[in-house]
Amino acid sequence: MTVHLVGAGPGDPGLITARGLELVRSCDVLIYDALVAPELVAEAPDDALTIPRAPLRQEAINELLVAYGRAGLDVVRLKGGDPFVFGRGGEESLALAEAGVAFTVTPGVSSIAAVPASALIPVTHRGVSDRVTIATPAGADELDYEQLVAVGGTLVFFMGLERLAPLAAGLVVAGLDPSTPAAVVSNGTLPDQETVSGRLDELAELAADLATPALVVVGDVVGVGAQIRDAVAGLVAAGS
Amino acid sequence: MTVHLVGAGPGDPGLITARGLELVRSCDVLIYDALVAPELVAEAPDDALTIPRAPLRQEAINELLVAYGRAGLDVVRLKGGDPFVFGRGGEESLALAEAGVAFTVTPGVSSIAAVPASALIPVTHRGVSDRVTIATPAGADELDYEQLVAVGGTLVFFMGLERLAPLAAGLVVAGLDPSTPAAVVSNGTLPDQETVSGRLDELAELAADLATPALVVVGDVVGVGAQIRDAVAGLVAAGS
Repeated sequence: MTVHLVGAGPGDPGLITARGLELVRSCDVLIYDALVAPELVAEAPDDALTIPRAPLRQEAINELLVAYGRAGLDVVRLKGGDPFVFGRGGEESLALAEAGVAFTVTPGVSSIAAVPASALIPVTHRGVSDRVTIATPAGADELDYEQLVAVGGTLVFFMGLERLAPLAAGLVVAGLDPSTPAAVVSNGTLPDQETVSGRLDELAELAADLATPALVVVGDVVGVGAQIRDAVAGLVAAGS
Repeated sequence: MTVHLVGAGPGDPGLITARGLELVRSCDVLIYDALVAPELVAEAPDDALTIPRAPLRQEAINELLVAYGRAGLDVVRLKGGDPFVFGRGGEESLALAEAGVAFTVTPGVSSIAAVPASALIPVTHRGVSDRVTIATPAGADELDYEQLVAVGGTLVFFMGLERLAPLAAGLVVAGLDPSTPAAVVSNGTLPDQETVSGRLDELAELAADLATPALVVVGDVVGVGAQIRDAVAGLVAAGS
């Protein structure tokens, strides 16, 4: 009798929350994003109705949630990452509340920190960065590069890789040092994860062969990640 | 034979990841933060050694992790929120890698979005905010308010409530509109959660009676949260 907005986490099916997994296992209807792991969709009961979100528009999703909620069913809306971080969970919550349908929100592990973590990059690190700004150039608007450079600290971008070259150029023109450490993590937390890192002004070239979805990290914490990975590589080479 | 750095999530024990819970249930040694839910500590095997992090210094924790790891035990270092978001997981990773001890990182649901979500505040919302900056004034340094105001979008602060009045004043002096919507969420995701919201320049007064830990959200998304909560209140009042 409730619609549950649930974060599936960043990709790896083991990173859904314990509560989120319980809700999936007991739902009547599961509406899931394209990036949700098939293993999680398979956790729904055999007789549950499972509906991929693609290719529906957001308005159609809202209507489905309201309709199944009103029909007295337990509905799980399983979203990649976290529903309330670039996840349009706010829009779905408003639509449900305004339609008089009860709902809950179960947060998920957001890609914003989990994907850098999967490349051993901490988005904050003592003495290196005490703030992080997350943005997306996915919309029609250009990013305000001057504002992003002004804030300092770590920058994280959700984006299509075709926008990487203009992103790097925009940041450099706005005053960021072209040698700032930067990384792209493709398919973060999944078996086919790939990471490249280097100077900001070489990043687009380094990432030319990577696949989407990808996440971009810019800032000195990328150097900390490289330091951790180097130490781990020494560890593996030593056979311990 | 491995040290696992695991995020416990924002407080509610149901918000640990499925993998994190598995690791806790099979560990030999559990070293846990003060804010980790007792229910999660209780999930460790009966014969596991469970060690509270407080009152040890970070260096002592690093030594414990290295020592138990070298002893061939499966160690879980269970941290509030996410290990790599204001969690010093980078420092622990470096210490382990440099000591030649194998480790893994299992991200957690960070408070940065889950705590606002528990008050129905989305940190991003289409047409309202497409970026979020997370910072902490917990260290000795003052925050650079001008940088934080310049970036625009949502601001999230992890902090002690005694610093709320100077934070609000600093943001206003740096140019943020004193009527900007702002909220404080205390004990987010827990049964004793409390939220206050209002104008930035009245926030310290509104939050005078709240308990730590608390998280502060500043920006127009707080208004979206209020809109969702109002719609939900109408829903509850209508008895549906």
